[in-house]
Amino acid sequence: MSEPWKTAITKIEPNKIVVRGYKLDQLMGKLSYPQIIYLLIKGEIPTKNVGKMLDAILVSSVDHGVTPPSCQAAVTVASTGAPLNAALASGILAINQFHGGAIEQSMGTLESGVSLMRDEKISTMDAARRVVKESLEKKKKIMGYGHRIHTNDPRTAKLFKLAQEYGISGKYIEMSKSIQKALLEETGKDLPINVDGAIAAVLCEISIPAELANFFFITARLPGMLAHIYEEKTRYKPMRRIDFSQAEYDGPEERNI
Amino acid sequence: MSEPWKTAITKIEPNKIVVRGYKLDQLMGKLSYPQIIYLLIKGEIPTKNVGKMLDAILVSSVDHGVTPPSCQAAVTVASTGAPLNAALASGILAINQFHGGAIEQSMGTLESGVSLMRDEKISTMDAARRVVKESLEKKKKIMGYGHRIHTNDPRTAKLFKLAQEYGISGKYIEMSKSIQKALLEETGKDLPINVDGAIAAVLCEISIPAELANFFFITARLPGMLAHIYEEKTRYKPMRRIDFSQAEYDGPEERNI
Amino acid sequence: MSEPWKTAITKIEPNKIVVRGYKLDQLMGKLSYPQIIYLLIKGEIPTKNVGKMLDAILVSSVDHGVTPPSCQAAVTVASTGAPLNAALASGILAINQFHGGAIEQSMGTLESGVSLMRDEKISTMDAARRVVKESLEKKKKIMGYGHRIHTNDPRTAKLFKLAQEYGISGKYIEMSKSIQKALLEETGKDLPINVDGAIAAVLCEISIPAELANFFFITARLPGMLAHIYEEKTRYKPMRRIDFSQAEYDGPEERNI
Amino acid sequence: MSEPWKTAITKIEPNKIVVRGYKLDQLMGKLSYPQIIYLLIKGEIPTKNVGKMLDAILVSSVDHGVTPPSCQAAVTVASTGAPLNAALASGILAINQFHGGAIEQSMGTLESGVSLMRDEKISTMDAARRVVKESLEKKKKIMGYGHRIHTNDPRTAKLFKLAQEYGISGKYIEMSKSIQKALLEETGKDLPINVDGAIAAVLCEISIPAELANFFFITARLPGMLAHIYEEKTRYKPMRRIDFSQAEYDGPEERNI
Repeated sequence: MSEPWKTAITKIEPNKIVVRGYKLDQLMGKLSYPQIIYLLIKGEIPTKNVGKMLDAILVSSVDHGVTPPSCQAAVTVASTGAPLNAALASGILAINQFHGGAIEQSMGTLESGVSLMRDEKISTMDAARRVVKESLEKKKKIMGYGHRIHTNDPRTAKLFKLAQEYGISGKYIEMSKSIQKALLEETGKDLPINVDGAIAAVLCEISIPAELANFFFITARLPGMLAHIYEEKTRYKPMRRIDFSQAEYDGPEERNI
Repeated sequence: MSEPWKTAITKIEPNKIVVRGYKLDQLMGKLSYPQIIYLLIKGEIPTKNVGKMLDAILVSSVDHGVTPPSCQAAVTVASTGAPLNAALASGILAINQFHGGAIEQSMGTLESGVSLMRDEKISTMDAARRVVKESLEKKKKIMGYGHRIHTNDPRTAKLFKLAQEYGISGKYIEMSKSIQKALLEETGKDLPINVDGAIAAVLCEISIPAELANFFFITARLPGMLAHIYEEKTRYKPMRRIDFSQAEYDGPEERNI
Repeated sequence: MSEPWKTAITKIEPNKIVVRGYKLDQLMGKLSYPQIIYLLIKGEIPTKNVGKMLDAILVSSVDHGVTPPSCQAAVTVASTGAPLNAALASGILAINQFHGGAIEQSMGTLESGVSLMRDEKISTMDAARRVVKESLEKKKKIMGYGHRIHTNDPRTAKLFKLAQEYGISGKYIEMSKSIQKALLEETGKDLPINVDGAIAAVLCEISIPAELANFFFITARLPGMLAHIYEEKTRYKPMRRIDFSQAEYDGPEERNI
Repeated sequence: MSEPWKTAITKIEPNKIVVRGYKLDQLMGKLSYPQIIYLLIKGEIPTKNVGKMLDAILVSSVDHGVTPPSCQAAVTVASTGAPLNAALASGILAINQFHGGAIEQSMGTLESGVSLMRDEKISTMDAARRVVKESLEKKKKIMGYGHRIHTNDPRTAKLFKLAQEYGISGKYIEMSKSIQKALLEETGKDLPINVDGAIAAVLCEISIPAELANFFFITARLPGMLAHIYEEKTRYKPMRRIDFSQAEYDGPEERNI
């Protein structure tokens, strides 16, 4: 027979939905979407600032034009007449080790660095040097540094600035910056912290498990994929030949809030 | 060979990501996740209140325990050793006409009612009666009323209260309530507006296209599916026999914020 | 709580797997894969010739290079480091109304034509004319005729020839050809029966329900998608920029069996 | 810019589709579906016997009732009103390390055993012993032996018998049997070779790469999933509460071909 099954997430009774102990209607209007993500994962309501930090992370990765494979898979599937959910599912299936996966890998690196610092009672910078040397010896790339297009990604600076403002900045962001310095020392290359690396550091600061990193990239990219799917369905004929290499932007001019 | 492709969503240049005309780093810390969803879909930044309303909608549908098929598909797939994105994709593929789809259908009904009111210059109540009579004649169920478990869903009242508070309540919510009255008049059945019906009315008030309704249910349910997937992976052995009919809640006691 | 569930497909007992009444080990070595597909769908073992016909259908649609969206979605997802099943699932999600869907629609047309013939006791050609006229009046395209690239698809002729040889050719193939003639009469356009139209006619001859047509296209295309996924994973680096408009064939020279 | 892209699979010209060098219409009626799978993967047409062997493998795993997670995910998704391809995709996403994955793992074991035999010039039995001892030391389970329900799976014996008949049986099947003996010697447990283990041995014999093993299980199970999806859609109401623990078989009585 099947084993008894216990679940600690949600209790359903007539006219009552209780999530992690809280009545859902009490949470509505009080918690933001990122806060309820945190509650679902960690079992506790985060501070407003943690919620704002997650909002900023989700906004930072909402879209990156037509070149990411998640966008291309979603648009390709949408163009065949697929329903919305199938096109989104296809885009999500493209978020893997080599697309989005840098966040999880970078979190692993930062966690190793911070553990080393604690266990060996060494400085952040010394721990960072050890992490970098070890990875160079193993010829393993450290994820989260450098970008194909952006040499100085404005989203990184903004994420770190907000982390400061929200009182979240700590040893992981410090470790992230120290590794950047150590990489320069050891390899002579000045690689900027990219947005994946910055998100990784911030997610570490608020104790998100590294194995759930992919969820934040998926969620962040969801509205972007939706916009591309919706544009495809409303602006173009089904099954057009899509040349992803020549998309031209014809949206609104640059503007300020 | 392939047609030229124009896209009005995102412009990518070195060190610059511009979404719907706005630099992404300028939006970070200013826009909430629901606000950027709205920007991506509609091309304009919504008011803070529209953002809060969408936050409340997403929170309202974040989870409904282990019985919804989206949860069951996600957990079943997770139990086989699937990566996170595949389990989520499978859950999303379960959100269709009969699960989550009531929102889109209900939006259609409310839009017909409001069009009728305007075109025929009749009262909301008269338009509601016409909508109900027509659907009874066609033996077509009006979605958004009645619930298998909840006779008085607390989420409905809360959504309407918040809509009032945020200055969003208007003719669609009125139409939703009028149809409830007309249903009682015509059938003698007092069916409560369920959470799908309430979400439908609110999404109409903020001019979300009905064909994108499914996206909001998918996004709302994403953290719920994640929590179930994560619980499955961390608490149970792979490939256990899962009996979805006998899950027992063993999470935190009921508590207040 | 849950309703009792009856299933007429497979019985499992220790050391015994019985499918549609037959012990699976008895079927092994006797039934071909297409024959077991038929058994699963229809509940009865088809003749060897029906099996051969289905083999030919599956072979006919095994691949069509890198331009079909199912291939592109599968390859795009594979390039991100996705496991095999996720890349295949993504390709399958691209098989919809506008890609592969012509088979189901064409089956519907042929079934209407044959019903008309029977109900009204008219000739195949007269029924075909009625079908064509009606669709022209409704400005609805008849699927299964004409092709973007192939003006005289060799697969169509071969499918019909094999159907003749296997004793399967009948009123649906006749109807398919009569509609081609009627289209020429009515529109002046000589549109060839394309491979989708030919498959549709043959599936009708062997009583496959139209709503399952998509399955045959999916199954046929599966090895093709696999080959593209495998080539992508073994021949190229992850996350390369894929320009689907300029793929160049460098496989074996043309050869005969 | 994007890199030039070469593909060795299919060449498309007007009225000509050439797969791995062969005109597709020439292959129709000559090659079975399993033979074209082999051609697509390996680039060469296999013998008729290899085709028959693959037919038998696909038949052997076509279905296993309602308990496998691939069936449950597919049926759950189908019940929500999903189109056929989404339900199938969901089922495929459930075929992973712990469901279907034993074939690939077992192929790895057999390949190690055979390499050991060759490199160290030792007997099959000695190599098998080394494989078993090593895995016991590492506390790593050897896949392909033992089954939850079937103590003597009739499909295993049949697969090996057919392999003999088709002239395919060789060192991998011998290794598979030797490992079974070595397991008995070392652990005292007489674990039967299960169907996954038998398929693994046969796929090794015909030089299928282990990393593609999952494809054969997916393809084999596809008609089974289709039958369950179709039964769900035609026999039951959408969104019924499905209790997978109490399905009762009401199909045809046992019968012989």
